[in-house]
Amino acid sequence: MTDIELKDGERVNQLFSSDVKIIQNREVFSYSVDSVLLSRFPKLPKRGLIVDLCAGNGAVGLFASTRTHAKIIGVEIQERLADMATRSIALNGLDQQMSMITDDLKHLPQHIKGSKIDIILCNPPYFKVDEHSNLNESEHYLLARHEITTNLDEICHVAQRVLKSNGRLAMVHRPDRFLDIVETMKRYNLAPKRIQFVYPKVTKEANMLLIEAIKDGSLDGLKILPPLFIHNEDGSYTDEIHEIYYGN
Amino acid sequence: MTDIELKDGERVNQLFSSDVKIIQNREVFSYSVDSVLLSRFPKLPKRGLIVDLCAGNGAVGLFASTRTHAKIIGVEIQERLADMATRSIALNGLDQQMSMITDDLKHLPQHIKGSKIDIILCNPPYFKVDEHSNLNESEHYLLARHEITTNLDEICHVAQRVLKSNGRLAMVHRPDRFLDIVETMKRYNLAPKRIQFVYPKVTKEANMLLIEAIKDGSLDGLKILPPLFIHNEDGSYTDEIHEIYYGN
Repeated sequence: MTDIELKDGERVNQLFSSDVKIIQNREVFSYSVDSVLLSRFPKLPKRGLIVDLCAGNGAVGLFASTRTHAKIIGVEIQERLADMATRSIALNGLDQQMSMITDDLKHLPQHIKGSKIDIILCNPPYFKVDEHSNLNESEHYLLARHEITTNLDEICHVAQRVLKSNGRLAMVHRPDRFLDIVETMKRYNLAPKRIQFVYPKVTKEANMLLIEAIKDGSLDGLKILPPLFIHNEDGSYTDEIHEIYYGN
Repeated sequence: MTDIELKDGERVNQLFSSDVKIIQNREVFSYSVDSVLLSRFPKLPKRGLIVDLCAGNGAVGLFASTRTHAKIIGVEIQERLADMATRSIALNGLDQQMSMITDDLKHLPQHIKGSKIDIILCNPPYFKVDEHSNLNESEHYLLARHEITTNLDEICHVAQRVLKSNGRLAMVHRPDRFLDIVETMKRYNLAPKRIQFVYPKVTKEANMLLIEAIKDGSLDGLKILPPLFIHNEDGSYTDEIHEIYYGN
């Protein structure tokens, strides 16, 4: 293992189904099942360029790195998180494949000129900012969870600018924002093509959705993929999630 | 059993989970699982007025009659189907609760003045008319399956006119039309609130969706209900569908 400095409160997590190690800090940011599922959702190009927007501590890109030889660039506005991601990249010896941009995602076109990205992965802040927002959360969680530094409109706008023609935007989000999501995608000519709903249990309402849209695609041919369940009725992980976390 | 004339090719079907008898004719129109699921999808008002658009042989309204004391009016443009529905209403002794209007649904405001409908149920034609449409189908099936005599836009337009404030439109449709459906609903201020995807098996893509929208509702608070599966992996009906067809 490369010798990487861990800062106060940090620990290294490993997804047992892969060799990827991720520096986490519960006080600041921890990846969760959302990131794992997003990284596995789209078919990734073998080569080319993948960008992970709202990269946080880099989990989505780190997981995705095991499935592609494409370059992966993470974009994260919070320096502390981007720094964790950069050290995780080094920890995994992925400096040749992965890198971080610490900036507001709306400046992405200044970092990557032209429309050359094959696929954008994005685990964005889920919540609108409104009177219910809990502004007592730690700043890091607040920015990761609420549409303060970015929002759906900015994400889709920048995706339309930097994706290749027929490039794809894959996002994880919450079902209660579903109508917003498809409307915003369509406003920027991103055509939803694959949607998968994730349910905590087979008898519960969906609490997560995965959606993939194609730049300048036609609005026909949307597919609703087979559902994904996290837990069995007894609370244990379903086979599919167990395999994702622990391998076969 | 009331003595009702059956015409050539007709037979009487009964859903074993209820006492409802339905006159069917395979050459003309047969209800299928879509109608059964639609009739059970929305919470029905105890009293008031329910309208079944694209009623066909009346199956949706007949099934719904077991769950409410509200008046139920079916609207069907094809005389032969509306006649089957009318005879099924008599066959079940439901003349006090149910009736049919044989007309184009866009004329509904001439039959029911004002905005007084609590809930509209609709199992509309699923397919756009295009070069792939099989115009060799029997006329009855052609009109039931393809957007020839009506379409999503007309259905949502008329729903907006005749529904009470906060009245609901519940529809069964196909997932590949999902983006059309939500866009058209929103164009007529019908806010989708509950969606359920129906999958032939747990491992397959969804092939049906149930959607309920509220007239003049807010666009927040969409729920994706637990998924519904028709078949087990071995091809037998799931418990839920078995119960719907055969009772407990």
